[in-house]
Amino acid sequence: MLENVRIVLINTSHPGNIGAAARAMKNMGVDNLCLVAPKLYPHEKAFWRAASADDLLERAVVYETLEEAVQGCHLIVGTSARDRRIPWPVLDARETAEQVVQEPDDHKVAILFGREDRGLTNDELRLCNFHLQIPTNDEYSSLNLAAAVQVACYELRMAALAKQEATESLSPKPVWGGEWDAEAADTDDLRRFFVHMEETLIQLEVINPKNPRQLMTRLKRLFLRSRPDKIEVNLLRGVFSAVQKRLK
Amino acid sequence: MLENVRIVLINTSHPGNIGAAARAMKNMGVDNLCLVAPKLYPHEKAFWRAASADDLLERAVVYETLEEAVQGCHLIVGTSARDRRIPWPVLDARETAEQVVQEPDDHKVAILFGREDRGLTNDELRLCNFHLQIPTNDEYSSLNLAAAVQVACYELRMAALAKQEATESLSPKPVWGGEWDAEAADTDDLRRFFVHMEETLIQLEVINPKNPRQLMTRLKRLFLRSRPDKIEVNLLRGVFSAVQKRLK
Repeated sequence: MLENVRIVLINTSHPGNIGAAARAMKNMGVDNLCLVAPKLYPHEKAFWRAASADDLLERAVVYETLEEAVQGCHLIVGTSARDRRIPWPVLDARETAEQVVQEPDDHKVAILFGREDRGLTNDELRLCNFHLQIPTNDEYSSLNLAAAVQVACYELRMAALAKQEATESLSPKPVWGGEWDAEAADTDDLRRFFVHMEETLIQLEVINPKNPRQLMTRLKRLFLRSRPDKIEVNLLRGVFSAVQKRLK
Repeated sequence: MLENVRIVLINTSHPGNIGAAARAMKNMGVDNLCLVAPKLYPHEKAFWRAASADDLLERAVVYETLEEAVQGCHLIVGTSARDRRIPWPVLDARETAEQVVQEPDDHKVAILFGREDRGLTNDELRLCNFHLQIPTNDEYSSLNLAAAVQVACYELRMAALAKQEATESLSPKPVWGGEWDAEAADTDDLRRFFVHMEETLIQLEVINPKNPRQLMTRLKRLFLRSRPDKIEVNLLRGVFSAVQKRLK
């Protein structure tokens, strides 16, 4: 249950927040913690705040870049407090959890949490299939990092328990998956796909690298929203290759 | 929205937890914080952890006893991690929130959070109409105090938003209340009612004060679960008085 989910904390400043997040995760049965370039880690304050979730901290993996932390993932969700210039599909914590527990068992899911002061960067948010917003008081919306992790993991647990009940009372067939005719593309597939796309669009002079505007962003949003499978990605990359060949 | 709800923290040891709870509350638009005999308060750590929720801390009311903190309340909910000897009606955080937002506007609601190490005492839990349990990992169920407040207030906000949407799309009549023929009894009514009941049962020798067993507890659970109104309480107290008069 929830073992395919990883919580990714990016550039966290305060080690205490890492510990409190670990405790929140363990309480809710979410075990995989990834840290991307934490400011101070390992640190005694993290272990102190983690209380009996220290085993989870000890197993936490530290990465230098977000790309490494989400390698092989099929669904990436970025937490975001603000509205962005280019609106991305947004789900709340409950809808996110329902989506996550409907993923097939072999799909890896990453939920990203940004810096205490600035959240996720636009580049990080544009890696995501959708954004997660927790509804807060308009007059005071800056949720503490561990509190946001707590709410997200609480909803994951609620959704997992509901699914477990539903599965137990129904036939043993999977709730989702199995009927699609190809595997979902993972982040590596998509990263190569987008690189190939951008390269092709530059060669086509659709994108001016000196003034790329929001074109790639909009295209990424389109494709990420559709959760493409491996066959679709390869098909489109075949198109890009064909275009590139012609331009030579 | 949610202004009839008070969060009551009982005998909190760490002032940082009070601050973190205040922040969690303000993020979710729950404003009324009551502190019952906090160990260290006021304290700079509370203000430090509250961040911009310091206004909420400044308005927090400190009481010496729980009875004072819940005076005039109509619905009292106690958070509880463990199963108790006498099982009480239990709702999860979502069900609790749905119940709370269905209360009439003039009903005061108190949600009680116990000590960091031991939670609420049996006596405190027996003041409650029902208990709130947040589903946690069986292997690690000790939710941090502020994390429990966060989850409860998050569900309150979700339920309040859902009710607001439902109310806006429906006719302007209240969702609950207005159709009952008497006001609900508040805690003062119920306290006097139970004192009167116990006194009567002792006089009747149904209860042996030297060995009261769980009789009053079971009776309290019965009446609290039914959410009696003022007329019903007075009617029963009339019965007790009649019994007492006969015994003299």
